[in-house]
Amino acid sequence: MTTDAVTPVLAHVDAQMDAALERLFALLRLPSISTDPAYKADCDRTADWLVEELKSLGMDASKRPTPGHPMVVAHDGSEGGPHLLFYGHYDVQPVDPLNLWHRDPFDPVLEETANGTVIRARGASDDKGQLMTFVEACRAWKAVHGALPLKVSILFEGEEESGSPSLVPFLEENAEELKADIALICDTGLFESKVPAITTQLRGLLAEEITITGPSRDLHSGMYGGIAINPIRVLSRIIAALHDDQGRVTLDGFYDGVPELSDEIRSQWQGLAFDHEAFLGAVGLSKPAGEQDRTPLEMIWSRPTCDVNGIWGGYEGDGFKTVLPSKAHAKISFRLVGTQDPARIHDSFVRHVERLLPEDCTVEFPLGKGSEASQMSIDDPAFEQARLALSEEWGVPAAYIGCGGSIPIAGHFQKILGMDSMLIGFACDDDQIHSPNEKYDLASFRKGIRSWVRILDALSRR
Amino acid sequence: MTTDAVTPVLAHVDAQMDAALERLFALLRLPSISTDPAYKADCDRTADWLVEELKSLGMDASKRPTPGHPMVVAHDGSEGGPHLLFYGHYDVQPVDPLNLWHRDPFDPVLEETANGTVIRARGASDDKGQLMTFVEACRAWKAVHGALPLKVSILFEGEEESGSPSLVPFLEENAEELKADIALICDTGLFESKVPAITTQLRGLLAEEITITGPSRDLHSGMYGGIAINPIRVLSRIIAALHDDQGRVTLDGFYDGVPELSDEIRSQWQGLAFDHEAFLGAVGLSKPAGEQDRTPLEMIWSRPTCDVNGIWGGYEGDGFKTVLPSKAHAKISFRLVGTQDPARIHDSFVRHVERLLPEDCTVEFPLGKGSEASQMSIDDPAFEQARLALSEEWGVPAAYIGCGGSIPIAGHFQKILGMDSMLIGFACDDDQIHSPNEKYDLASFRKGIRSWVRILDALSRR
Repeated sequence: MTTDAVTPVLAHVDAQMDAALERLFALLRLPSISTDPAYKADCDRTADWLVEELKSLGMDASKRPTPGHPMVVAHDGSEGGPHLLFYGHYDVQPVDPLNLWHRDPFDPVLEETANGTVIRARGASDDKGQLMTFVEACRAWKAVHGALPLKVSILFEGEEESGSPSLVPFLEENAEELKADIALICDTGLFESKVPAITTQLRGLLAEEITITGPSRDLHSGMYGGIAINPIRVLSRIIAALHDDQGRVTLDGFYDGVPELSDEIRSQWQGLAFDHEAFLGAVGLSKPAGEQDRTPLEMIWSRPTCDVNGIWGGYEGDGFKTVLPSKAHAKISFRLVGTQDPARIHDSFVRHVERLLPEDCTVEFPLGKGSEASQMSIDDPAFEQARLALSEEWGVPAAYIGCGGSIPIAGHFQKILGMDSMLIGFACDDDQIHSPNEKYDLASFRKGIRSWVRILDALSRR
Repeated sequence: MTTDAVTPVLAHVDAQMDAALERLFALLRLPSISTDPAYKADCDRTADWLVEELKSLGMDASKRPTPGHPMVVAHDGSEGGPHLLFYGHYDVQPVDPLNLWHRDPFDPVLEETANGTVIRARGASDDKGQLMTFVEACRAWKAVHGALPLKVSILFEGEEESGSPSLVPFLEENAEELKADIALICDTGLFESKVPAITTQLRGLLAEEITITGPSRDLHSGMYGGIAINPIRVLSRIIAALHDDQGRVTLDGFYDGVPELSDEIRSQWQGLAFDHEAFLGAVGLSKPAGEQDRTPLEMIWSRPTCDVNGIWGGYEGDGFKTVLPSKAHAKISFRLVGTQDPARIHDSFVRHVERLLPEDCTVEFPLGKGSEASQMSIDDPAFEQARLALSEEWGVPAAYIGCGGSIPIAGHFQKILGMDSMLIGFACDDDQIHSPNEKYDLASFRKGIRSWVRILDALSRR
């Protein structure tokens, strides 16, 4: 239901869209690539920009140092009623391969496409465009009513794309300040780019980078080929043996703790009109490549996976160099579900690699950190209030869905701050996040802001 | 036997070593990387430098254009007696990874090492230092005697490290001019860095670069992992299946045309004191990784092989990017022996890849060229004359050996110019050709020059 309080705020949002876009573009121009040390100062400037932005709408905002990139924390609204903590991240993914971008990733622009107007830039969808939907909703509320309808705290992180090394210590040190009744996390998407959704199921992530060393230096394959072990051949065998012919991951104990879907969720998912042929067709594929006895939705939402995210070794340049390389490298990650234990799976992965490693080769495992999967309970009435507000804005019933990605923050909020999270976002499957030419639909941005206006109103009535 | 004609020439060589090194260093300073178009002008300047060098010692030398890098051709000596054609190449391998070089690859220097003085630079051993041993031998002969003892022609190529695309047409167009009684090819090594050798057996080479494309763009592994095919996983399976557990190559028909060693060669090789533990130990290895039922010398000299010379795909930078890449690439090469047919093996490789390729992936095979192995007959008495001259210089009996590398020029000389080749060179196993920090022993350079002085004398007496 659209209340009297909400109507003028929605009108204000629509009237002020150009100014809102200008603010988002200013944020998108800052190249806050957290994983690359070359962009450290840019990450810091991005935090400063956000502090000024939040102060400009009357919030008590500050930049908070960490051993890595800073956090941004802000508070607003009066005590007494419900208290929300909104989370987003201001850092973005690297932009390589840069030659596949059609324009500068940090020079945002509005583009007309066959599917409507989009905002094109690195971070447009993940996560700057999303976090600004909430900031703009707050700005509109305050512009129209002078104050927010409930107490709001904000936490913006700058290390989400690089493993969040400072997050847990920061939450532990500032637990009293950050604890709220419920968290809102805006880093997820619509269902099939059309239906608004609250994500209640998230996969965990275990990431490792292995380096296989064979000969102590690069060799000439004419002189040593056939007698010296080739580390690329070793690495290929290790990767090839991670899956069986049916697409199952072969690590010992990998499926321990992987739950089967409840009948309730299974029937709910069967009711969703998920068109996997369209989902795959949009990226040039046709066949689900995961476990062959699982449905496509299970593959992306509720089953664990293993992917190679990068591989390199030897000569990559133009022409041919008959080198037999000393080293071969791969970045390998696992998406985890249920109660799969990242540490035990890492142990099992190490044993898998070592079993296939010839005596003459060595291997390094420099990372080995992971996060567990998380599952929200939807007993808190806030979930249903938010779902109705979303349905109202989008004109279709909002869904409770799963998500293939990993957003460990939800688990941390639960464990450290003792509160549940509602994962609500407006990204589309074709936003090309983590890829060249990332975009965010202008409709996602506008209706995202409007959605938060409605949700703030709905949750203030608890 | 050291003749009266030879003694003063050898003394001249020793007296003029500093000047000879200055000339070699000038050649090593030219970055003639033939495979990289950025160095095209440098390759041309290197050909000019060689023409001037050969003219300076009174030869009729010229730069000869080709569709690629130019050839250098020179003639000297009087008609009537035996006629030699000397072949070398002035182009060098790329220098990456540059960060593993201890100094500028194109700033040559003499370095003292535990194993004696070395000339450190890209091309010092492959092949500029080697070709200059012959040029300096000619210079010394002419300085002492005013003329060479027999007719000499020289052919320097500038595309040996990039597949020699212009070589066959050039030989065909200039067959009359280049045809001689026997060819000398200086692109091989000593046996175990100590014993001089004439290489009579060379492996062929088939090289291919495959690109596997899965999704039409890079994807986020959180969103698509588990349902979208990962081309790195596909490539790894293809590479892993190229060898069986015993180190044999699995391609259909791969071993067709692979001869067993004759009893004569087998017993000769058994007589060579090849220490495979030292050979492998020098590069940090201990176990021969090839076919487990073959001896180490067979693995490197007479058995065909398959190596991956490069692999890449996805994210290679610092940190972690959970990308599911669109493409994965590998450079794969096969060393061929006997009468193995490069075209049939390429067909078999294509079938191997296509059999393991999921329906949703595509693959490209842009190269697919290859050269057959070659085997010299040692019936020509020039072989034994040269072997005795080498033995005299080095103080140990010179050996007839095999070579793991591919020097297709020997086959071309046989087919197009109708002449045999003697492959004589002075490189050592630890020269790190094609690797960072390439070197050539000062002893190889000095005794190489002196060896050619003796060989010129010996062959003039046919």
